[in-house]
This record gives sequence, structure tokens and C-alpha cells, in this order.
Amino acid sequence: MRYSKLFPKTLKEAPHDEVAINAKYLMRGGFIDKLMAGSYTLLPLGWRVIENINTIIREEMNATGAQEVLMPLLHPKDIWNETGRWDEAKDVMYQFEKNEKHFALSFTHEEIVMDLIRKHVTSYKDLPLAIYHFSTKFRNELRAKSGILRGREFMMKDLYSAHATEEDLMKYYWEVADAYLRVFKRVGIDAIITEASGGVFTKEHTHEFQAPCEVGEDTIYIADSWKHAKNDEVMTDGDRTAPGLKAIKSIEVGNIFPFGTAKYAEKMGGMFTDKDGQRKPVWFASYGIGPTRVMGTLVELFHDDRGIIWPESVAPYQVHLIGIMSNESGIKEKADKVYELLTAEGIEVLYDDREDVGPGQKFADCDLIGIPVRLVVSAKTGEQVEWKKRKEEKTELLSIPQILEKL
Amino acid sequence: MRYSKLFPKTLKEAPHDEVAINAKYLMRGGFIDKLMAGSYTLLPLGWRVIENINTIIREEMNATGAQEVLMPLLHPKDIWNETGRWDEAKDVMYQFEKNEKHFALSFTHEEIVMDLIRKHVTSYKDLPLAIYHFSTKFRNELRAKSGILRGREFMMKDLYSAHATEEDLMKYYWEVADAYLRVFKRVGIDAIITEASGGVFTKEHTHEFQAPCEVGEDTIYIADSWKHAKNDEVMTDGDRTAPGLKAIKSIEVGNIFPFGTAKYAEKMGGMFTDKDGQRKPVWFASYGIGPTRVMGTLVELFHDDRGIIWPESVAPYQVHLIGIMSNESGIKEKADKVYELLTAEGIEVLYDDREDVGPGQKFADCDLIGIPVRLVVSAKTGEQVEWKKRKEEKTELLSIPQILEKL
Repeated sequence: MRYSKLFPKTLKEAPHDEVAINAKYLMRGGFIDKLMAGSYTLLPLGWRVIENINTIIREEMNATGAQEVLMPLLHPKDIWNETGRWDEAKDVMYQFEKNEKHFALSFTHEEIVMDLIRKHVTSYKDLPLAIYHFSTKFRNELRAKSGILRGREFMMKDLYSAHATEEDLMKYYWEVADAYLRVFKRVGIDAIITEASGGVFTKEHTHEFQAPCEVGEDTIYIADSWKHAKNDEVMTDGDRTAPGLKAIKSIEVGNIFPFGTAKYAEKMGGMFTDKDGQRKPVWFASYGIGPTRVMGTLVELFHDDRGIIWPESVAPYQVHLIGIMSNESGIKEKADKVYELLTAEGIEVLYDDREDVGPGQKFADCDLIGIPVRLVVSAKTGEQVEWKKRKEEKTELLSIPQILEKL
Repeated sequence: MRYSKLFPKTLKEAPHDEVAINAKYLMRGGFIDKLMAGSYTLLPLGWRVIENINTIIREEMNATGAQEVLMPLLHPKDIWNETGRWDEAKDVMYQFEKNEKHFALSFTHEEIVMDLIRKHVTSYKDLPLAIYHFSTKFRNELRAKSGILRGREFMMKDLYSAHATEEDLMKYYWEVADAYLRVFKRVGIDAIITEASGGVFTKEHTHEFQAPCEVGEDTIYIADSWKHAKNDEVMTDGDRTAPGLKAIKSIEVGNIFPFGTAKYAEKMGGMFTDKDGQRKPVWFASYGIGPTRVMGTLVELFHDDRGIIWPESVAPYQVHLIGIMSNESGIKEKADKVYELLTAEGIEVLYDDREDVGPGQKFADCDLIGIPVRLVVSAKTGEQVEWKKRKEEKTELLSIPQILEKL
């Protein structure tokens, strides 16, 4: 991609009302644009990061046997009444009336999935079942001050599973937990599994995936003898005196909910016929990762005072090529050729080909955008190209074959 | 994919309130599920069809130089007031109030794009600009009786372009028209470009892409001397006496709107500085294709009394493999082996491996689902495999190498 064609260019300053680092850098770098508090457009660079995150999630979800679908965002009131959540969740859920019909905007999809199950699952042979989608979630957030970490509207990958027995459910539940840990590892986050409460989802304990980060809204606790960390909400008085107790600020990047049968299947009639001919409710669970929140978390974790430092697995491009166009003839042609050579090799290159912008601005834009490798072609680089990693200060002159080998 | 694992299985009957062929077959085949009138879940088979359609659209959009983004669905009232469409479009737009803020759900995104333009476009060097996204659209449809052809909620690929001059705009406008014709051709639709009115989008004439189809809601007219067809709405008395005039029932599968500068750029301040230093409004246009509507149109165009007949380019799988599991030993193993061989060659196979379902049901399900090629392994096929195309009656026995060559 030629940077001269990319929409939009970097901004000198983020809007004054943005306080979060993730929003500041993502807005200045041209990854996102703010439509209103808590609501952002994913611009071409941001969309590429999200697509990379989503591809990793999709691969790990498919590996568990889950199948991709797309469920509606506008829901009828009736279905939310069946579980009592029309009232229970009315603070977070956008609800409205039109032509004497009452609607809600999706903040989650348990009821919608349970409706699919009661219509399409009849026997134990139809189980287990695991479906997921990437779609928009809406939450009525009064405080929307954490950039894309907490939005009125955001992207979610949510997975739902149904099983014939509790044993089957818990086996798959921990398989998904492992898949989630792999997702976070692959995008660059060492997530900590944390016991938490279920909020408007369930009375049972649930598990969160927490990314340690100083600006996180959550506090989690670890102790020497605990298998998992614990969220503040589930701590008992005894827990607070556990040996080696340590508090960690963190960002919740995923969560998984083992519902059992009571809250959804029994209330909505999500039943199947077991091997012995008995009608039984399915064992149900749901699982969520917010790709936009993951993107924001990565910026909080990986940046310096010049800008973002993307992990290679999610970077919008692999290489940021800068042509220092001087009056000396042939530099532009040489940079063009490097761009074409790398692109022909299947390498994803953002090429700053602007002729009316000086080197200082180009280097600053490059550091702000945060692509893992910077290449420079200038009057000084001769037949070679200058190589520098975003996270290192060292530069070296390399030939094209050497660069191809390194990439 | 093993059919025994696919969610969900076919249904014997579609719900009684569905009258449209597209909804009946898509629901019975397990492609979609209805949440409420005009609102459907895309189930795994349907999602695969939509992904195939979207990939074709994405390739053709990228080839025009357009860049992919994702814009919010929840919009503040203020932005719609700037063009007067909060009131103009209030019949189709879902609008509601929450915590003393007024919101609308996206039925289109011109205002949102113009907001991006006024924030990020400063000079003629930032033009042309073309961005698109695939996202959910909401329309307050009172009559939602055409299955997925007309929904309260549906998927749309919408593209927006901004240019420095009218000439640039119209050049790109017709490039997109060509790209749209290629998209429709590739998915199997011979679309007709049709002059139409602009509804709540513009007072100018616009162009629709119409797919001739007897169940279409639209009537278009062609005549010997006309370059393009005309929609009923724009016909003059003179037009109605044109030589060779012919009426065609059709389904609108796409539309393109050349706005100019007045309706959006001037009202919202979408300005740029031209080469001569003058501030001017951008020339603006938008373009839309509804992938879910395209899927429904394909079913209306390509079906028989047994089910759907998917064009190869969008079929959810390339091959539907049926194992006729008899008591004779070794049939299941042979069918499994064919499945593994084809899958290893990168062929997408739906494999009906069910052991408790008879051949009649399997053949009926196969015809209903409509994958282009049916392969059968049974006690009768010996070392070979029976090959049949969905749209032909002829069967033949082929070896695996012969099948690979045909695919």
C-alpha cells in the first residue's frame, strides 16, 4: 500500500477529550476515528489489525470444532422476557419501541442461541454443538473514557456451546479456555485465568482472561496456593489473608461462562432426548473475546513515547518502507523498485512514497504507526537498504536478498 | 465437513408463515433461521455462501482502489440533522432515546462518511478517496414478506467515494458500475443497469442493478433505443410509447448514487483545498450491494421443485459426498477414504456420513441443499464413485483421479 493513497494520514494531535493512550495513539496513527463517546470507526489500518486478530481467533475456534454463523443484532422483547433479562439487564441494554413493538440491541446472544437450540436440536445425536460469530455488541455505557477498551458499540467474538452432560460441558469449557490462552499468546498477551462473578449472565462463578496492565480497570489477586487468580468480586475474607497474596491491575480481554441448565435451557425449553428416551435440558455455556478491546490492550501494553509497537502477528503491515526523496535522481525509482520486489514476494508493505514530506515527518509517522520493521531507501543507502526493528534502536544496511531472508 | 456434525440438519417443512421460495428453501436447507419477521440468523451453510459472495465483492472493490473499513451502527441524532435526514428518513430509520440522548440505527452511512471526510481530508492530494465496509443495516419494514429479500436487518456492502471534480466522480462512478456488473456476473446474475429515482438519498437520478426474476417486486422497462433500462418511477409519458418497449419483473440487487456536492458535502462541510488554493466541496457518491439479498435472489433464480441449485462460485461446498451405508462391510471405510482424499486435495466437501439415515433422505437433503456436484459411494459403485451434477440428471461412474480432474 502506498501511504500517499492510504486514508487517512496521521494526525498531529488527538482530540483533547481523549485521555486513554490506546485511543490517542490509535486516533493519531489513523487506525480509528471517533464518531461519538464510546463509538469508533475502524479505519483501513485499524481494520487490518482487527482482521489479523479475528483470523487467529477463527483458527482457534474452528480447531475446537466450533462452526461460524451470524446472528441478528435487533431482538424482540419476548425472547429476553423468557429468561427475565429484559428487566435484569435493562441498564446495559438499549431497549426501544417502534410501531408498538419492543426491541433490544444485542449486548450478548444467549437467548438467541437457545432459541436456535430449541428449534433445531432434538436428540443427543445433535450434541455437542458449538457456534460462534463475530458481531457488533451494544452496551449503554455512561462512562466511556477508556478509548476502545469500553465502548457503547464494539466488536465481539462470542461462542456458545451445548452438551448432553455436565461432564461434556466442562471438558469443552476447558478446551475453549486453552484455545483462548493460545489466542492471547499468539496476539502477544500473557493472559491470566481469573475466577469472577457472572453479573447479568449467571449466578455461578465464571472465568475471565486478564491481561496485566497498569491502566487496567480491574484488580485481580494471585496467591501461592491458588490455581487461578481471583477477581476482587469473588474474594472472601479468608482469601485476603492467603500466603503470597499479590494484587495486579489488569484489563479483562475475554470471559467464559459455564451456565449449566437452569438459567437458559430450562427457562426457554432447550431440551433434547437422551439415549434412554428421556427429555433433558442441554448443558450450556458461552465464551467471549472482544477483538477491538484486544487491539486497545495491545496498544496499552506495547508502546513508547513515540507511538505503537505492534506484535508481528497482528501488525497492519509487516514492513514500513520509507523513501527519502531527495533531489538526487533515482532515489524514488529505487524505492519504488524495492516496494515492487517485496510486494511480489508476498510481503505486506506500507510504502511512504510521499514526495512533499520530509524525512523527519516520515520517521515520526513510522514510529507512531508501529509496524515491526522499518526499511529506508535514501541517497545514503547506496545499493542497500537500511533495516531497523521498531522495538530496537540498531540500524543496519542490508541487501534485498538479506532482507527477504530476515522476513 | 461431516454432515453428522453440521448444525443444523434439514427441516421437513418451512414455517407456515413463509411464502417466499428463497426463505422456504434456505430455512429447510439449514442456511438460515428466522428470529422474527424480517430478521434471520445466517447458519453455518448460509454464512459460507455469504462469505463466498463477500469475497467476490471484496476483490472487485479492492481492484477499484477502494479501502475496507468498519463504521458504527449506532449514530447520534445530531449528525443526521445536519442533512435533514433525521426527519426525512424517519419512516425507515429506527430512532430512539436513551438517557436523554437520541440515537438512530444505521440504514446507510453517507453522513458518517462525510464526517470522516471533513475531519481527515484537507487538500486535493487526499482525493480521490473510496472506502467501503460490510455491515448490518436496519430498516423499519412494515411488510417483511419476501424472505431475506427485504429485511428489518440485513447485510450490506456499502462503498462511498469523494473526488475533486465532477469528471473524476463520474469516471469512478462508471468504474464501480463495471465492477458491480462483474460481481453479479461472477455470482451468476445477469444484472441490468436501470435508471431510477434517489428516494431519501438524492433528488438526482441514480442507477440500480436489477436481476430479472418473476417474483421481483420491481418492474423495469427496456426499449430498443435506450442505453439503460428504466425503473417505473422515472418513466415519462413519452417513454411509455417508446418503440420495442418491454416490461420485466426484477429484483434490485444493487444501486449507485451520484450525489454531487449539494446534499452532503455542502451541508456538512466536506471541503478540500484545490490546486489553486480555493476551498471547494468534494464530489460525493455512494454504492450498495446487499449480500443477503443476493443470496436470496440466487435461490429465486436457481432452484427446482427439489431444492436450490447453487452457482459454483458461491456454493457452500464444492462437493456433496453421500455414503450409502449398507450392512455390507467396508462401504463406510471407503466413503471415509474418498472424503479424506478429496479434502487433502483442498476440495471443500460436505460428507453425509450418517449411519442411521437411509438413501432416500440423503438424496433429498442433497438436492435441497443444492451443492453443484454429488458423489455417491455405495455397495453398487465398486472401486469407483458415482458422479452427478445438481443441475443435470445424468450419472456416471468415475475413478478418483477422474473426479479430481473434473473438479
